[in-house]
Amino acid sequence: MNKYKLVSLVLAVALLASLVTVMKQRQTTAPVDTASVVFKNIYDRRSIRFFKDRVLSPAQVDTLLRAAMAAPTGRDRRPWRFVVVDQRAALDTMGAHLPYAAMLIKAPMAIVVCGERTPRVPEAEDLWPYDCSAATENLLLMAQAMGLGAVWTAVHPYPDRVALVKRVLRLPENVIPLNVVPVGYPDDPAQPKRKYDRDNIHYNTW
Amino acid sequence: MNKYKLVSLVLAVALLASLVTVMKQRQTTAPVDTASVVFKNIYDRRSIRFFKDRVLSPAQVDTLLRAAMAAPTGRDRRPWRFVVVDQRAALDTMGAHLPYAAMLIKAPMAIVVCGERTPRVPEAEDLWPYDCSAATENLLLMAQAMGLGAVWTAVHPYPDRVALVKRVLRLPENVIPLNVVPVGYPDDPAQPKRKYDRDNIHYNTW
Repeated sequence: MNKYKLVSLVLAVALLASLVTVMKQRQTTAPVDTASVVFKNIYDRRSIRFFKDRVLSPAQVDTLLRAAMAAPTGRDRRPWRFVVVDQRAALDTMGAHLPYAAMLIKAPMAIVVCGERTPRVPEAEDLWPYDCSAATENLLLMAQAMGLGAVWTAVHPYPDRVALVKRVLRLPENVIPLNVVPVGYPDDPAQPKRKYDRDNIHYNTW
Repeated sequence: MNKYKLVSLVLAVALLASLVTVMKQRQTTAPVDTASVVFKNIYDRRSIRFFKDRVLSPAQVDTLLRAAMAAPTGRDRRPWRFVVVDQRAALDTMGAHLPYAAMLIKAPMAIVVCGERTPRVPEAEDLWPYDCSAATENLLLMAQAMGLGAVWTAVHPYPDRVALVKRVLRLPENVIPLNVVPVGYPDDPAQPKRKYDRDNIHYNTW
């Protein structure tokens, strides 16, 4: 009888410990804290300029473009167009001639975010650069969330850069490249910048 | 002796069940799937135009602005300035006079995203609208993640809207409002738009 009494006692203690673990896990894991995950992703995003020698899958590229096309656009016009570039010659030519975009020469691919202009909207009122900027930010955030890295290299509004990219990608007259965004697996120790500054915030009036 | 034998058996079975639960929980909850959470937040974000009669806390507003100021900017110039508006008269005046911004009259507050121009950069090359567009997208995404709602109502590049907002908020000459973003607790059945379109994607050349 003493033997089973001892076994019962040991088992009871083990069961109690195990149940406490179950309860603790349940408490800490119940809801995903979307706000925290999203904030951390936004806050820790950094510009990646050096990449591993590894290509993205078509599914990864598709996810990036789905994220980009979820941005809002003025009057819901959706003027965004995307050119996915993985041909070495095109990447190297843009890398050689665009200032601040030399990293393209070592990048496995790039996504060029463009806006398509429509004759209905006067150029001075065309919101395509804002729409495409929001879409680009989605793309950059999604890359960060997937463990990838990317960086926005400006093309528009510099006429010489616009002309070069249009020529390399054979863009129609009314399609204007906003930027070239190399994407890949990060090989870059870049840390996120901390840019919050209270002096940039005003209340009700300046 | 039989009694404790039975107790031991019951406890042993219970312990086994409990341990299986612990192992299962550990498997399913170990890493937060950042990519899925971020994608869902980007994909499900929608423009919110109707709000509950409930104000945001200063901490919530601060989180939105921290997210906004984490966006990338051209040459790291950080031209963004933010005016947090919760005075009824200012919200109502902007709501009455800005097209597509009538919801301001029923919104508890708005954040006006502005760019500060610098004489060093020619206007035709100033990237502030793109930088502020990316910052606005961060703000909209962060609102969505926090269970809040917001909508981008355009001000720039429309000269009459720019003039009105500058007057209401007493902005300096070189500070230009890009948009007015009402923010609040959603009271709006708006569903996310599905805007992905394969026809917008090109490979290597147009």
